[in-house]
Amino acid sequence: MSHSIAKITVLPGDYIGPEIMSAGLSVLKAVSEGEFDYQIDEQPFGGAGIDQKGDPLPQQTLESAKASDAVLLAAIGGPKWDNAPKRPERGLLAIRQDLNLFANIRPTAISQAMQKYSPIKQVAPVDFVIVRELTSGIYFGKPREIDDHHAIDTMCYTDEEIRRVAKVAFEMAEKRRQHVTLVDKANVLATSNLWRRIVEDVSADYPTITYDTKYVDATAMKIISAPEQFDVILTENMFGDILSDESAEITGSLGTIPSMSRGTTGPALYEPIHGSAPDIAGQGIANPLSMINSVALMMRHSFNRPDLADDIADSVDAVIESGIVTPDLGGGSTTDQVTSAIINKIRERR
Amino acid sequence: MSHSIAKITVLPGDYIGPEIMSAGLSVLKAVSEGEFDYQIDEQPFGGAGIDQKGDPLPQQTLESAKASDAVLLAAIGGPKWDNAPKRPERGLLAIRQDLNLFANIRPTAISQAMQKYSPIKQVAPVDFVIVRELTSGIYFGKPREIDDHHAIDTMCYTDEEIRRVAKVAFEMAEKRRQHVTLVDKANVLATSNLWRRIVEDVSADYPTITYDTKYVDATAMKIISAPEQFDVILTENMFGDILSDESAEITGSLGTIPSMSRGTTGPALYEPIHGSAPDIAGQGIANPLSMINSVALMMRHSFNRPDLADDIADSVDAVIESGIVTPDLGGGSTTDQVTSAIINKIRERR
Ligand SMILES: CC(C)[C@H](C(=O)O)[C@@H](O)C(=O)O
Ligand SMILES: CC(C)[C@H](C(=O)O)[C@@H](O)C(=O)O
Repeated sequence: MSHSIAKITVLPGDYIGPEIMSAGLSVLKAVSEGEFDYQIDEQPFGGAGIDQKGDPLPQQTLESAKASDAVLLAAIGGPKWDNAPKRPERGLLAIRQDLNLFANIRPTAISQAMQKYSPIKQVAPVDFVIVRELTSGIYFGKPREIDDHHAIDTMCYTDEEIRRVAKVAFEMAEKRRQHVTLVDKANVLATSNLWRRIVEDVSADYPTITYDTKYVDATAMKIISAPEQFDVILTENMFGDILSDESAEITGSLGTIPSMSRGTTGPALYEPIHGSAPDIAGQGIANPLSMINSVALMMRHSFNRPDLADDIADSVDAVIESGIVTPDLGGGSTTDQVTSAIINKIRERR
Repeated sequence: MSHSIAKITVLPGDYIGPEIMSAGLSVLKAVSEGEFDYQIDEQPFGGAGIDQKGDPLPQQTLESAKASDAVLLAAIGGPKWDNAPKRPERGLLAIRQDLNLFANIRPTAISQAMQKYSPIKQVAPVDFVIVRELTSGIYFGKPREIDDHHAIDTMCYTDEEIRRVAKVAFEMAEKRRQHVTLVDKANVLATSNLWRRIVEDVSADYPTITYDTKYVDATAMKIISAPEQFDVILTENMFGDILSDESAEITGSLGTIPSMSRGTTGPALYEPIHGSAPDIAGQGIANPLSMINSVALMMRHSFNRPDLADDIADSVDAVIESGIVTPDLGGGSTTDQVTSAIINKIRERR
């Protein structure tokens, strides 16, 4: 951080995006009172970027993000832009590349308070993190072509792209249960074989960490049948996309999960893992917890304020336990009621 | 079929492969008595092919398969060949291509008898089929390269490759609940966009079938939270690999699920969906049901004997319900005990 006042770029996005962002910002305000100075710069992004500036990632939005200490994003996209020449999701892919956010970090845990929401019968203690490579692989590889008779996508990786994200995973494991699992398809893919070589090499620098590998198809099974075996899962972009959504589902509480995307330097980006939920937009019933948890994650990792992050996390847990939850978690509370309850808990703690 | 005696190529493979193949062949013999004439030609394949002929798919094995009416495969691979220059799995990829088995069909159902094995709390009636493209995509695309600093895999599809497997899916839906879901990543991949165009086009020939599309990450969630919405899932090779294993896991009974791989003409191949389970090989406790169900699938689809397929299926259900199951299903019975119980049931029905 180069300034004394933290600079946060805020991207509310589309449909329920602005609703949950407003909840997240209220909690940020409450937790920061007398504790943390910040200023926010709100910018259009995604569908809102298309509508206001003709681009899902307008130049000014990108500049604001680059000049910030952290970026908060709610959710983007939706049917309104299905036939747009450049869809909202292109903005997401672009900001990841332009901010060099090569590591996407997704906590998958089932806390005591959340156990009952899991669709799985025997919930072993689940607490793992997926580190997904986010700026390379088949998402960005060239050639990418389509004509009437053929189409091609290219999955490519360089040693450096693998090495830097592998380090993130091993460093994370050092602060956790000391275990990294590389997930790949090394019995089929050349890129997976490069991942094996490089990650094996990186693992030598972390002698306290146990390291193993697993095929992506087997992992899709184990996430359901034996998720307790995972601590840090490291994987490439496409596999990470699929496995992290599957993992979110086994917690039964998609509407609560935040994520962090980061590079080596520069601002990190924090966002809920779910989409913009056009079906419930405007009804005031969107679950704000994923956005509020994203704010907590930001306080912990970008601003080194674990105390404030804990204030938020503990208040969220208390509110869930008291049954003040939105319809997606089987409750009858509104976005505002959940948010107010959390703010009250935070104030009680002061 | 060009001969009056059915010709079946049998590939027992590795580790538990021969154990469950022997069970499958005993059931085939029992159900065929006085009903169905066949001859089998057993050939080395996978690790056994490497050991006996220096190749996971020896020439003679391929010739036998090509000249057959159907191929039965048990399971291949294992630690013994981890450092083989050409691993057993290469044989699997090669036989798929050489027999042009472009459609892999995986039933995912939870029968009354199996409900208790599912790891999911609220098992809705699950009964869907995944039609996975099996001979193209990133498994076979060129360039496929690796050096010390880069690696490349190529996902490519032609319109014809998509069209022929799409037809298989729509024809299957006509005999089921009239619904096809194309699973793709059309918000990112060029190949997915070609899939959308072609499958949309194919769907026009099947006016009674409802057709929709879903992203692969969302599908990985819905398979857990709302699997009842699927009838036929159509998808490309890599996505199919991941989603079909995930689907198998929600049934809780991996050891029971068969699969079929077919082309337009020529023999189809039937095999369990699980691997060669080196950890339990030689103990006589491998679950034979996946292999026995593969035999039933073969009788139904390659030999047009639904009566014999039903004899097997009903006997399998009865034996499961009577609690005669192997340890993977929580029972204490051996491979032989389960197999004998099924054969007795078949004989009782005569
Ligand atoms: C919207 C889409 C391009 C994106 C992705 O696939 O990366 C999303 O699924 C995610 O995981 O953030
Ligand atoms: C062994 C492997 C190459 C194979 C595949 O990925 O196709 C297997 O996982 C399967 O699904 O049959």
